[in-house]
Amino acid sequence: MSIKVVKIGGNVIDNPEKLSSFLQDFAKLEGPKVLVHGGGKVASQLAKSMGLEVKMIEGRRVTDESMLDVVTMVYAGLVNKKVVAQLQANGCNAIGLSGADSNSIQSHKRIVKEVDYGFVGDIDHVNGAFIYDLIEKGITPVFSAITHDKQGQLLNTNADTIASSVSVGLSEFTDTQLVYCFELPGVMKDINDPDSLIASIDSESYQKLKGEGIIADGMIPKLDNCFAAIQKGVTSVAICQAERINELTEGNYTKIY
Amino acid sequence: MSIKVVKIGGNVIDNPEKLSSFLQDFAKLEGPKVLVHGGGKVASQLAKSMGLEVKMIEGRRVTDESMLDVVTMVYAGLVNKKVVAQLQANGCNAIGLSGADSNSIQSHKRIVKEVDYGFVGDIDHVNGAFIYDLIEKGITPVFSAITHDKQGQLLNTNADTIASSVSVGLSEFTDTQLVYCFELPGVMKDINDPDSLIASIDSESYQKLKGEGIIADGMIPKLDNCFAAIQKGVTSVAICQAERINELTEGNYTKIY
Repeated sequence: MSIKVVKIGGNVIDNPEKLSSFLQDFAKLEGPKVLVHGGGKVASQLAKSMGLEVKMIEGRRVTDESMLDVVTMVYAGLVNKKVVAQLQANGCNAIGLSGADSNSIQSHKRIVKEVDYGFVGDIDHVNGAFIYDLIEKGITPVFSAITHDKQGQLLNTNADTIASSVSVGLSEFTDTQLVYCFELPGVMKDINDPDSLIASIDSESYQKLKGEGIIADGMIPKLDNCFAAIQKGVTSVAICQAERINELTEGNYTKIY
Repeated sequence: MSIKVVKIGGNVIDNPEKLSSFLQDFAKLEGPKVLVHGGGKVASQLAKSMGLEVKMIEGRRVTDESMLDVVTMVYAGLVNKKVVAQLQANGCNAIGLSGADSNSIQSHKRIVKEVDYGFVGDIDHVNGAFIYDLIEKGITPVFSAITHDKQGQLLNTNADTIASSVSVGLSEFTDTQLVYCFELPGVMKDINDPDSLIASIDSESYQKLKGEGIIADGMIPKLDNCFAAIQKGVTSVAICQAERINELTEGNYTKIY
């Protein structure tokens, strides 16, 4: 058995039609699977409507105590349960989880160096046995981006990292493929040229693409994460458009291996 | 094996010290168990801070679409995950669930008669096999008062009814005891006399107490619910104070059987 761990971000979550269409496709996706979702813009909107200040440092959210309550409500509550209810309606036996549930993802509060991001978690351990057991029963885990420290503290956690950590945790039990849904069809040589998709990248070609400046900026940490997951046991990573989740064929997404 | 299904309400949820102390006691409670929690005042407070109108008819919340989002955020998100994280910190392997998760509690939107309560669910089916399977693995399910209709619609659902329905669903597999935590020590003959606790009520003495007007008003639907659960297979019901959850002895709570 091979498990797909699929991550969707704000561009899908924030658009009800896109989300509904994606969840229909995801429900049809054959074989065992896991969904990981970010939170989108709803958390910031809710915070503003409550009169809270949304603090960002270098494009990253600062999670103070009030904001932690907001993201817990939105990610682990509203978004997670709506996604689960829609998957159930589409015949997919989904279960919504935060990292606190059955201690599935344990983290620690990020140690403050230059910037204090507040109640943000860095992952220590994934309870792969528990997640694998659910999957074996035909259940589809749906993770929100909230973890805990096993000392009673919930922590806001990067959804990309949750997806890669869950994939690594499951790779102890079986083949695992990590799938990042993206706004673009995959990694592009030229962002403005839709025909410039890079069909596959291995660690050797990655060094070359970086050296040539074709892969740069924000894509570097993303791809570093992908290669780290592969080194820790994940079979391959797909970077693709959410709309294509059910029809990935060579050349319409980027395969990282 | 005998499973305890414990329900706590707003008086515990709304008081952080009381909640923390209760969760320590609940974690220590021996044997397999389930926790069901209401939402408390946080949902109304959040709605007000968002500028939403809180509509009540005869003391019961009307759940329009915005309010459904609020209760989903607060009950299934904030309260549920905080409770789970605290139980995990106390060594209890809790998992937080709404009725949508693994289709554990399926309901239908209440049919409008005289009053339209909006997105409120009446329970049709409890997935006892799934809940029992978690319990057999040493996991403690923690239910929020949100269910779904398996058509994609989440529904706000009475927490007392969730507790009794889960108890009935589990009674197909093993002995089940339903425990309602209450502000008072149990059912009182005279609400102003702390020594007037009724130690036990069976269906015969219930008729007598009702006939004498000792049990009246709001207590009647509560006790009707208890006896309905017993008729459907639950072994007994305890009505007790949250503080005594771990030390129930004859005469310090009301046993219904």
